[in-house]
Amino acid sequence: MKIILVLLETQWIIRLMFAYTLTDEQNLHTSLLTGYNRDLRPGYDRNKPLGINASFYLFSINDFDLNTGKFTITGVFLLNWNDERLSWNPATYNQGNTTSIPQKKIWLPNFINVNPFKDIKGLGSDLITVDVDYSGLCSWYAVQAFEVICDPDVTKYPFDTQYCALKFFIWGYDKTAVNLYFESSRVILTLYSENGIWEITDSTTHKQLHFHGNEEFVVGFHLKRRTDYYIASLILPISSISLLLGFVFLLPAESGERVGFATTILLSTVVYLTIIQGKLPEASEPNMSILGYILVSYVLSGTILVVFVIISLRIQNSPCDKPIPGIFVRFVVCCRRKRKMVDVKDIDSKSTIFKEDEDSQVTWKDVGTYFDLVCFFISVIQFMVTVTVYFSLVCA
Amino acid sequence: MKIILVLLETQWIIRLMFAYTLTDEQNLHTSLLTGYNRDLRPGYDRNKPLGINASFYLFSINDFDLNTGKFTITGVFLLNWNDERLSWNPATYNQGNTTSIPQKKIWLPNFINVNPFKDIKGLGSDLITVDVDYSGLCSWYAVQAFEVICDPDVTKYPFDTQYCALKFFIWGYDKTAVNLYFESSRVILTLYSENGIWEITDSTTHKQLHFHGNEEFVVGFHLKRRTDYYIASLILPISSISLLLGFVFLLPAESGERVGFATTILLSTVVYLTIIQGKLPEASEPNMSILGYILVSYVLSGTILVVFVIISLRIQNSPCDKPIPGIFVRFVVCCRRKRKMVDVKDIDSKSTIFKEDEDSQVTWKDVGTYFDLVCFFISVIQFMVTVTVYFSLVCA
Amino acid sequence: MKIILVLLETQWIIRLMFAYTLTDEQNLHTSLLTGYNRDLRPGYDRNKPLGINASFYLFSINDFDLNTGKFTITGVFLLNWNDERLSWNPATYNQGNTTSIPQKKIWLPNFINVNPFKDIKGLGSDLITVDVDYSGLCSWYAVQAFEVICDPDVTKYPFDTQYCALKFFIWGYDKTAVNLYFESSRVILTLYSENGIWEITDSTTHKQLHFHGNEEFVVGFHLKRRTDYYIASLILPISSISLLLGFVFLLPAESGERVGFATTILLSTVVYLTIIQGKLPEASEPNMSILGYILVSYVLSGTILVVFVIISLRIQNSPCDKPIPGIFVRFVVCCRRKRKMVDVKDIDSKSTIFKEDEDSQVTWKDVGTYFDLVCFFISVIQFMVTVTVYFSLVCA
Amino acid sequence: MKIILVLLETQWIIRLMFAYTLTDEQNLHTSLLTGYNRDLRPGYDRNKPLGINASFYLFSINDFDLNTGKFTITGVFLLNWNDERLSWNPATYNQGNTTSIPQKKIWLPNFINVNPFKDIKGLGSDLITVDVDYSGLCSWYAVQAFEVICDPDVTKYPFDTQYCALKFFIWGYDKTAVNLYFESSRVILTLYSENGIWEITDSTTHKQLHFHGNEEFVVGFHLKRRTDYYIASLILPISSISLLLGFVFLLPAESGERVGFATTILLSTVVYLTIIQGKLPEASEPNMSILGYILVSYVLSGTILVVFVIISLRIQNSPCDKPIPGIFVRFVVCCRRKRKMVDVKDIDSKSTIFKEDEDSQVTWKDVGTYFDLVCFFISVIQFMVTVTVYFSLVCA
Amino acid sequence: MKIILVLLETQWIIRLMFAYTLTDEQNLHTSLLTGYNRDLRPGYDRNKPLGINASFYLFSINDFDLNTGKFTITGVFLLNWNDERLSWNPATYNQGNTTSIPQKKIWLPNFINVNPFKDIKGLGSDLITVDVDYSGLCSWYAVQAFEVICDPDVTKYPFDTQYCALKFFIWGYDKTAVNLYFESSRVILTLYSENGIWEITDSTTHKQLHFHGNEEFVVGFHLKRRTDYYIASLILPISSISLLLGFVFLLPAESGERVGFATTILLSTVVYLTIIQGKLPEASEPNMSILGYILVSYVLSGTILVVFVIISLRIQNSPCDKPIPGIFVRFVVCCRRKRKMVDVKDIDSKSTIFKEDEDSQVTWKDVGTYFDLVCFFISVIQFMVTVTVYFSLVCA
Repeated sequence: MKIILVLLETQWIIRLMFAYTLTDEQNLHTSLLTGYNRDLRPGYDRNKPLGINASFYLFSINDFDLNTGKFTITGVFLLNWNDERLSWNPATYNQGNTTSIPQKKIWLPNFINVNPFKDIKGLGSDLITVDVDYSGLCSWYAVQAFEVICDPDVTKYPFDTQYCALKFFIWGYDKTAVNLYFESSRVILTLYSENGIWEITDSTTHKQLHFHGNEEFVVGFHLKRRTDYYIASLILPISSISLLLGFVFLLPAESGERVGFATTILLSTVVYLTIIQGKLPEASEPNMSILGYILVSYVLSGTILVVFVIISLRIQNSPCDKPIPGIFVRFVVCCRRKRKMVDVKDIDSKSTIFKEDEDSQVTWKDVGTYFDLVCFFISVIQFMVTVTVYFSLVCA
Repeated sequence: MKIILVLLETQWIIRLMFAYTLTDEQNLHTSLLTGYNRDLRPGYDRNKPLGINASFYLFSINDFDLNTGKFTITGVFLLNWNDERLSWNPATYNQGNTTSIPQKKIWLPNFINVNPFKDIKGLGSDLITVDVDYSGLCSWYAVQAFEVICDPDVTKYPFDTQYCALKFFIWGYDKTAVNLYFESSRVILTLYSENGIWEITDSTTHKQLHFHGNEEFVVGFHLKRRTDYYIASLILPISSISLLLGFVFLLPAESGERVGFATTILLSTVVYLTIIQGKLPEASEPNMSILGYILVSYVLSGTILVVFVIISLRIQNSPCDKPIPGIFVRFVVCCRRKRKMVDVKDIDSKSTIFKEDEDSQVTWKDVGTYFDLVCFFISVIQFMVTVTVYFSLVCA
Repeated sequence: MKIILVLLETQWIIRLMFAYTLTDEQNLHTSLLTGYNRDLRPGYDRNKPLGINASFYLFSINDFDLNTGKFTITGVFLLNWNDERLSWNPATYNQGNTTSIPQKKIWLPNFINVNPFKDIKGLGSDLITVDVDYSGLCSWYAVQAFEVICDPDVTKYPFDTQYCALKFFIWGYDKTAVNLYFESSRVILTLYSENGIWEITDSTTHKQLHFHGNEEFVVGFHLKRRTDYYIASLILPISSISLLLGFVFLLPAESGERVGFATTILLSTVVYLTIIQGKLPEASEPNMSILGYILVSYVLSGTILVVFVIISLRIQNSPCDKPIPGIFVRFVVCCRRKRKMVDVKDIDSKSTIFKEDEDSQVTWKDVGTYFDLVCFFISVIQFMVTVTVYFSLVCA
Repeated sequence: MKIILVLLETQWIIRLMFAYTLTDEQNLHTSLLTGYNRDLRPGYDRNKPLGINASFYLFSINDFDLNTGKFTITGVFLLNWNDERLSWNPATYNQGNTTSIPQKKIWLPNFINVNPFKDIKGLGSDLITVDVDYSGLCSWYAVQAFEVICDPDVTKYPFDTQYCALKFFIWGYDKTAVNLYFESSRVILTLYSENGIWEITDSTTHKQLHFHGNEEFVVGFHLKRRTDYYIASLILPISSISLLLGFVFLLPAESGERVGFATTILLSTVVYLTIIQGKLPEASEPNMSILGYILVSYVLSGTILVVFVIISLRIQNSPCDKPIPGIFVRFVVCCRRKRKMVDVKDIDSKSTIFKEDEDSQVTWKDVGTYFDLVCFFISVIQFMVTVTVYFSLVCA
Repeated sequence: MKIILVLLETQWIIRLMFAYTLTDEQNLHTSLLTGYNRDLRPGYDRNKPLGINASFYLFSINDFDLNTGKFTITGVFLLNWNDERLSWNPATYNQGNTTSIPQKKIWLPNFINVNPFKDIKGLGSDLITVDVDYSGLCSWYAVQAFEVICDPDVTKYPFDTQYCALKFFIWGYDKTAVNLYFESSRVILTLYSENGIWEITDSTTHKQLHFHGNEEFVVGFHLKRRTDYYIASLILPISSISLLLGFVFLLPAESGERVGFATTILLSTVVYLTIIQGKLPEASEPNMSILGYILVSYVLSGTILVVFVIISLRIQNSPCDKPIPGIFVRFVVCCRRKRKMVDVKDIDSKSTIFKEDEDSQVTWKDVGTYFDLVCFFISVIQFMVTVTVYFSLVCA
């Protein structure tokens, strides 16, 4: 019995003797960090650049404010490099071949975002540890929120696509000292949770030369706005109200409600504009948003329509004894003839007979009726043209 | 007398001699922390994972912004683990068997939230001390506010339910190194003070495999919006105003106020929309909110109704000598017959006699009256259908 | 002459010799802080709790946001305790019997707010020094802004009263280790500058048992909203506009402006609502605000009144030959009789003669006139009832 | 030649030998700061207070939020005092008689703002250095933004004047230890850039006794709001619209647009109110703003006017056979007589003849005409009184 | 074979022997920083100022808030100076002639922004390293966001130009100690990404004397607002609506919609104002924005026009038997004559015959017609004058 216990004990002691223990790890840390100067990059031969392997996982797009150009995302950088000062012989430490060291105790690539919206910020935080294996391979997973400047182009709002890029420098090291390369030419989206407003159509990770010969590392996103909300909530309602304004000319002139109709619909347009103006970006660079021009055209064409309504009412209310200008008479006759040609194509013989009579019977009321019709069609055509032009510009 | 004093004194000295004193605790701290390396996890045998026992108490849900997906809560994590380096023999320190050590002086599990809205943040703060007992058992109560990303689904707004989760990694330690398990499978709500907008229907605390083989620790909440406010303040008023618009067809045609009524009610709809649009999230992912479509349908059906009002007025104002199309005549006759069948079922004999006469007497005014009736019913039915479809979609 | 100088000099030297000098204070600091471990609480005998004397002076209430439940105040905590390690013999230091030591160099009670809105925060700042006298009595004046969670009850808004509390723990010390007691059972308001919106009706400072047997220290405020602004700016205007809507039935039916009146007033109600909705909290817990229901009732009763206006117009415009239902006839006759009874009580004989005649003369116009009167009174009564119910609920 | 070079060299060496060099300054710093304890105030004799000379230069007023009482300014404090520990003999250091030392290395007066809006903050920052000359005179220029609590009085808004003060303590030192005095009794405005909204009418810097016998240092500002914007944008437009409402009684009764006029103008008042309500502070302490009452009176008098419009219309539409109450007849006759007295003063004889006739001819229309006139004058007078009362209250 | 290997090995060893290695750089750092006091500026001879070469690259203008005067930009400062303490002999370190040192380890010019919006901030951050070459030349690239106070002049809004400057001091060093000069007299815009609202028309970098004899370093921007958005979205719509109001006088008097037209258009003006008021700065210093006055004039002239509409209606509705004042008769006759003179210049003979007759036939209706015409022209002229005055003031 005793022997078994002794054996078990011995076995345990032996296992511990050859196992990686707390003491081993403590000795390892002491040995690695003693004399370690974290201000100096790894690489014994200073003439050979240090290779760093990078990939970027996007977590989420938090915000993109078109007015200020502030683009906020959260993601994680995975950087791997080899620091020979942090290599050891596992045999010395009972086969302990990995450890993790707080990031502030060892050298880190000074990977700094150079188009920040506010102050510059390094990667990671004091909470993060770097995984190190016995060969000196360091793996740094740096979770970070980035606020960068992104110059938006609001011309096609809300059908806009945007390109936003995070730009990084490795401060203090030019390309002869550090050679960072991206593992993938795209941002890795496996951990991405979709943004409600923006869709990522494409992304890029690359490096480019820039600014006093330094290398710039770019993580870029091509974004496309999801337009459902904007079509349904902004464009459809105000367009339908704007179109409605032209129908004032179909209102019977006798109803005495034409002006009320026109002004109230104009007011509705103005009220609806208050919602949209609050959402439209103020920026006019490179262009003002086309939608802004459309909205203005709605208000302006609204006021012009109201003026035409007044003119129409003046025509209808003209005293009978006031002579009708010849141009109006010819215009009415012309309209009538066209109508008749459609109506009574086969009784041509008769119509020519009464033609002269009808022409002489043109009253102010007739002029008003045809004036209304023309205004109605013009307003509808103007609306169609505006919409067509808008969508052709936006889709171009 | 003197003896008593001496005895009392002696007793006091003895009590102090055997009592846990400031000096004892100071010696204890010195002894525990000398040579302690807080970068290394407890556990002598590195091949055995360190067990950590966790529970999460929710204090409050502070905010959940559907537009940005920012979910903010305050709560406390209770973590227990055993650090053999912090164990001692109470006898050595006059039965002092507990102490508390500032959190920055000892090893702590690197429990880091990996779906933060902004930068990552560790647990606790320098103010917090860890309770340690003589066996090395550490108890860490870390009060914290968390801002995490939560991808909302606004489809059923304001009848939406959401699932938001806080995700944690233990940075630098895989599951062979640290084995954290939740004591309860739910968030503990004994300290929770209710949120005014969101109700917690269920919660979960569990771990799952994720991201390069790491274990992810999840604290999840199933939330249900309290809908009283939204029904009373948003849906009821705009629905009643929208429904009111159909009543324009019941207004006597002679009143001359139909167009004014329709346009002012349409304007009211638009004004009310300004409140709701400010509250509706812009997100269109995975779907735009159905309520957004309903609101648009209110505006669109409003403009269509106004067009119908104009048509009705044109019918009523048609000159008597203009012939009525056959389809309108048949339609009026058909309506009349139906009515009569309801009114005079038992005097069938008479009705057949006058039928022919009545048909020939159809005037434009009659057409207008029945047109109004049909429009009224269509508008009411359309409203009912919209509401029914909405609630069936939302409750599905 | 020389002697006097020598004497003066000597006197000065003597005064300095026996005066408390910079050197004395420097020696004192060195002596006190050498070997001082600020992680350990004062109290030689660990079995006796350390007594701490606390009082709270409120400076101001900065903000109370009903939507998020964030309650922000600024105040100062005065804490006194005895740290025997900081006691000295004044004689040794030329009668220097007080000094002040930066708070980060000595032990402080770990007084931590446990219902913070964001992260937990300790008291004081590195700028603050603790006054210490020779007996070891420490006086700590910690000025602080606190942001805490306060669960509001919006039911009676804007006539609401709220109770908000700051809750504190002394982290790491249970009641056997530290015994904190408040000097006063109320918050001290001598330094308070009044808040414009909230009035403090009562306050409390006490301790209570809580959470794993710890003691919780509570600084509570009973708040009452100042209602002048809300009555004058919100309730009076919308109520008067809502009441005005009923007067539509007093408008002469011939004016042809009834519908315009009703819809424009309804629109004004809706517009006014936009102001108030922006101020109403969205919370529905424990109840939605009664005011929210009142506002909805204004809009709903407004739409119903508009429907009644339409019905009234239909009655007035009914063709003369359409038979009047018996119930309307009886209703008109009944109304007339009542009126007459008031008018001509003493000529009873005559009235009975003409009664039959009058009954037969009931026209649609008469029905409309009495229908209007009834609607007017119903709308006024409904308004009165709503207001009465509201104030009885709010004052209950 | 060589000699010249040697001489130049020697000269240069000599100049350097006697010049203040880097080495000198380094030695100086080492000598000054060795053994320097920055926790202790200067002053060898602890019984004599340390004199500190202060002045405050205002840079700008950044913000003053009436709702929260947050007052934000930026300025610079200039503090001078004598620290004998930092004095040296310039001769020892080659006539080096000034140096500058980072503020965190030497003692600074613990000048702390005690009415902060958020947390307390000390002066200066680690970036700032203190200029020290050989006599030990320290000059500290501390640029700082201050956010303080300022209890506003909104009674006279927007014609209000406010008094806001920054209050400071020197923490840990009573007046027997430190004696701070302001050089000027006013804030120095030479570096001030004007604020767009607030004008500084006066300022003060003084000290006063306060709070447990400590001295409080006050930097106070008397502010006056620039009223151009508020008169032009808020008060003029709403007043003119409100006044316009009374003109409804001048509209010909036959126009059939009186009610439409009154309700639309009332609606405009309500809409305009939405702008102003957003700017009006909610505070009701010590009083609600008088402007708030004026706005309410506009809405209330608007609703009352609408009721009078309805009454006027009822009078005008009264059937001819309905008897006119005696009081109305007398009122009309009275009005007519007054008019006539103005018109036909010299044909008195005739007028008395027709008097009786005219009195008997009073119709409902006449009553309505005079009722309108009276209402018009009452509304104008009421408006005038309101405006007069407002400005007399505001200017009082 | 072996020989070749040996040779290669030797070569490699030799290359390493003479190459700049990690060890060399570590020795270099140790040697440079030992005894280095970063509180002391470079320059052995303290009587010679240290030359610093500066240039400023602008990245972006983030925000310029006219209400608070907060101007936010992001850019990079490039500063070069010579620190002889950081010079070395490259030969000693195997030709290693450059290194980079973290900014917190060496002396930096204390370049501090002295017109900050909040607290003062130094340049750079702990992440940034300074490039140093063997001659001691230090190159510091400090990326920074600056929030400064900029006193805006809103007089010409939205056609305003602004001048904003960042002001810097080198704290603790007067011009005898440090001599900073800008390399370019302009801000370098090669890295600038355009701001959507502001255009940089000019920029300046210079130094000037200021504040107690210190030198102030100024980086100034002349900004011009891009006006497309403001013209299209603000000025055009409200101007067209305001102009429309005058057309009320062209509405036939019989239409019975004049008052409705005028009030609804006035309401639209008021509604549109709500958008613009939200954007207009409240500041009245040095002047209120002219646009603010224009907007007020729109509302005021609107109310006056409404009063004129009422007067016109009273004229039209005057009873025929009421005598027309002589001035009106003369006015109508005068108008008619002018018209006729245009119409019938050549039939002068006839017109003089009927003149007398026509004059006697002046009716109230005629007066109304000409009154309307005059009002219309006055309103149009008043509008033109307002617009002309505005643009002449803005462009002046």
